[in-house]
Amino acid sequence: MLLEDFSEPRLIQVIKNICPEGPGIIIGIGDDAAVLALEPGSRIVATSDMLVEGIHFDRNFISAYQLGWKSLAVNLSDVAAMGGTPRFALVSLGLTENTELHFVEDFYYGFKRIGEQFTTYLCGGDTVKSPSGIIVSVTVLGSIEAGKILTRSGARPGDLVAVTGVLGSSAAGLALFQKGILGRFSPEVEEELKKAHLEPLPRVREGQILLARDIATAANDISDGLAVEVREIAAASEVGAIIYGNKIPISKATVTVARFLGEDPLQWALGGGEDYELVFTFPPEKMGVLKELKIPVTIIGEIKEKEFGVFVDIDGKMCNLEGYGYDHFKKKNQ
Amino acid sequence: MLLEDFSEPRLIQVIKNICPEGPGIIIGIGDDAAVLALEPGSRIVATSDMLVEGIHFDRNFISAYQLGWKSLAVNLSDVAAMGGTPRFALVSLGLTENTELHFVEDFYYGFKRIGEQFTTYLCGGDTVKSPSGIIVSVTVLGSIEAGKILTRSGARPGDLVAVTGVLGSSAAGLALFQKGILGRFSPEVEEELKKAHLEPLPRVREGQILLARDIATAANDISDGLAVEVREIAAASEVGAIIYGNKIPISKATVTVARFLGEDPLQWALGGGEDYELVFTFPPEKMGVLKELKIPVTIIGEIKEKEFGVFVDIDGKMCNLEGYGYDHFKKKNQ
Repeated sequence: MLLEDFSEPRLIQVIKNICPEGPGIIIGIGDDAAVLALEPGSRIVATSDMLVEGIHFDRNFISAYQLGWKSLAVNLSDVAAMGGTPRFALVSLGLTENTELHFVEDFYYGFKRIGEQFTTYLCGGDTVKSPSGIIVSVTVLGSIEAGKILTRSGARPGDLVAVTGVLGSSAAGLALFQKGILGRFSPEVEEELKKAHLEPLPRVREGQILLARDIATAANDISDGLAVEVREIAAASEVGAIIYGNKIPISKATVTVARFLGEDPLQWALGGGEDYELVFTFPPEKMGVLKELKIPVTIIGEIKEKEFGVFVDIDGKMCNLEGYGYDHFKKKNQ
Repeated sequence: MLLEDFSEPRLIQVIKNICPEGPGIIIGIGDDAAVLALEPGSRIVATSDMLVEGIHFDRNFISAYQLGWKSLAVNLSDVAAMGGTPRFALVSLGLTENTELHFVEDFYYGFKRIGEQFTTYLCGGDTVKSPSGIIVSVTVLGSIEAGKILTRSGARPGDLVAVTGVLGSSAAGLALFQKGILGRFSPEVEEELKKAHLEPLPRVREGQILLARDIATAANDISDGLAVEVREIAAASEVGAIIYGNKIPISKATVTVARFLGEDPLQWALGGGEDYELVFTFPPEKMGVLKELKIPVTIIGEIKEKEFGVFVDIDGKMCNLEGYGYDHFKKKNQ
């Protein structure tokens, strides 16, 4: 059986069957990040992501600086989804023989710049030759208080579903490059969408606050599109959910570009991915606390009983969330 | 400037200049593994290695099981060199669309098998598509007591230099495959050398004992060949060293294959690499304790003053160690 015929959740199940969780693994394969116990009372959050040229990035569109930034950002985002504090990073770089030294320098400048904003410092890694194409593999280690961790599995019927920031901007930014339509919109519009795609800002502080103030019952970062992330929370929590399409926050810039291309911005928000915002669930009685926090949050839906299923309401039409988002064999944290 | 014109230590220096060490990094870029402080009194050892098809392995020679084994072994070996206890592993795998599911399963079986021997459990990672060739990136996390860590920098003039096990076997095993001479030697000879190359056993327990019994002043694992590792210890410790070529332990099997090919087995031991044994320094007064431990250890040289330089004595001829081992831009733990 070839991997191209194989769904992503099944591949993870295969790996979990072969490598069951060992002692000290509080949360292992299958959530945004692993939570590990090395000492009693102390917990480590660890997450790892790989970016491969030609699959995850195109060097015509992303600079070395942005690649360094983004490769750390996607890992910080996984730590953010658990409410952890990122601390250290390891980078393994595969470089071709004709890679410019300047490329490597710019990569680490971008990496350092976003690391400084999130207390995350390079501590090691590996640099190797690659026969074709650049390969980046980043591991981030962080800390989290024992017993107090945001996971995917705590959502309960009656909880509300909310997201940080706006969705679909990364897909809109990618479309600017892929459709060759850069320069057709205002500099503000293009800058906003390019940044969303190339230099995302993970919601580390927001995740920490949601955890510290005991607000969220479940959370995920939006790396594979809202539809996939909501389904993951529903599956892990054994609940259903309804998302209201008209409540999903989408920026004007995203709507502008979508309209120009004859695309539906809502589809980008649901299935585009790489927004690196957080989606989380919380009980309605926490609404007051949440509003005080001045986090950019929008309520977009409700958790239902499992039997209800997982749907998005688009102009009164109930659409199953199964149909959206990535399902090639690419998976965070296995 | 292209990377092919660039030496490995200079590349590491470039990275260190851009990303200086942050708070909590006890030992960062430049040793076998990083040592990190998340909590006072508790230390994490972290190391990361990347293996790329066509550069580090040839699927005609190594099975998926062995690749899983070896990719964990090389990381365990870095933890061993610091005397740490490996605990958890993250694996990022890049797989082509036509990778067989069986390949992935066998990889994780090999990974699990060696992990079980060294209390190391898979806790997460990433699985992504690769456009051409298999990519493996492994991060190992371990624990170590605060203030008690084996590094490269503690060797002092008068210390003795010792290695565990035998050297050159991995190079001999590789030669069996590359020269197409499998089947010309006894099954025992071939089995020993193939295992040394494909399923190395890292010296985790030996590193822990050397640390716990307060014997070693400096240590390195032998991934890039004895010559490189001794030079690294000498540079980090600011000392010189003399290695006696006729004392370097080499197995009969290695000598047999080298003779057949008209090669010098001593060159394999000095420059072949991938033996994953330990080289360490210790004061002569610890000799008694070391002998009691029943670790397979051979004394091969002596630490000298820095002005002496770093030499190997081959049949009375003093050869500078500069000339040996890997120096393409491949580097463990930056």
